Amino acid sequence: MPKLIDHATRREEIATAAWRVILQRGIGAVSVRTVAAEAGLSVGSVRHVFASQTQLLSFAMELVIDRAAARIDALPHRRTELESMEDLATELLPLDEERRGETEVYLALFAASGADSTLSATRADVWGRVHAGCRTIVSRLTDAVTVTEEQHEQEVVRLHALLDGLAAHLIWRPSEVSAAAARTAIVDHLHELTTRFGVARP
Amino acid sequence: MPKLIDHATRREEIATAAWRVILQRGIGAVSVRTVAAEAGLSVGSVRHVFASQTQLLSFAMELVIDRAAARIDALPHRRTELESMEDLATELLPLDEERRGETEVYLALFAASGADSTLSATRADVWGRVHAGCRTIVSRLTDAVTVTEEQHEQEVVRLHALLDGLAAHLIWRPSEVSAAAARTAIVDHLHELTTRFGVARP
Repeated sequence: MPKLIDHATRREEIATAAWRVILQRGIGAVSVRTVAAEAGLSVGSVRHVFASQTQLLSFAMELVIDRAAARIDALPHRRTELESMEDLATELLPLDEERRGETEVYLALFAASGADSTLSATRADVWGRVHAGCRTIVSRLTDAVTVTEEQHEQEVVRLHALLDGLAAHLIWRPSEVSAAAARTAIVDHLHELTTRFGVARP
Repeated sequence: MPKLIDHATRREEIATAAWRVILQRGIGAVSVRTVAAEAGLSVGSVRHVFASQTQLLSFAMELVIDRAAARIDALPHRRTELESMEDLATELLPLDEERRGETEVYLALFAASGADSTLSATRADVWGRVHAGCRTIVSRLTDAVTVTEEQHEQEVVRLHALLDGLAAHLIWRPSEVSAAAARTAIVDHLHELTTRFGVARP
């Protein structure tokens, strides 16, 4: 099905052009016209793939998380669950240039005000996927011990907030919060989580 | 000096009108003209106080932190340092309507892309003031024990990220992260911080 593959490729091309517009000029500059120009396509070609600016932004936002999910799926197996979960959590932090760009786009799209229902639904979905990632980390780390549902959800809320806060600070104040400090913060947090719940370490 | 007082009042009036524009229509809608209309003033009156849109946004952003600082200064004295620091930290979370609006403005201004040097300097200053607040909390909680400078800064990075992450989630996903859960996350974190450093509790 070469036609379908072309369509998917074109869609990603347009979405990453939208990322570049967001990174260079802010989310307010994204329109079918500016993204078409950035992608080197006609307005008609872009409209053929995305009927509206909102659809384009929604796809661009989901693509950030799709790429992170693909990287997480490709992570090599580590010796212990704790090491594997450290890898998973740090994959959600912008510790290299590629992920810095993606995180900037993620933060810009989240902070963009607007009552548009499609974009709100996408924001909810994307937030939920990261939240589910945090839930996986907490579940796998506390698998061997008894944890109430309330305690579990509380740990998920805390881990997700810590991750998103670190990601934002790495983008906003790279001179103040280093990649090493952010990584330490997450690794320490996961170690202490296992200690608090009395999880035996190998 | 009634003239000076009038000027200060007018400045806050204009800045809070800018907040309302940000909350209702997004930061992209802020201009001297839209803010003047929202404040019920002439464009000339606004220009008399703020020479540019950037100056207006800078002041509006500083005002968010000024108000939080004023509330923190007015906090009643608590029985223990830990309780006082819990109050200080939770004052930085959007747990009521007034602070929700302020936090939305804070996040919108931070996420707004732009290379404007005045606004960048303001963002750095505002971030630094919150970071200093977190430094105060860590210092006062670990006052009686030995902590290396590196450990201290690491705790500040972690507390600040957790606070900003919780604040963002309270604004973005209020249906998923409750005020009670956010408060618990911070209180638990501060308690565990004192436990980790072996601080005796009264």
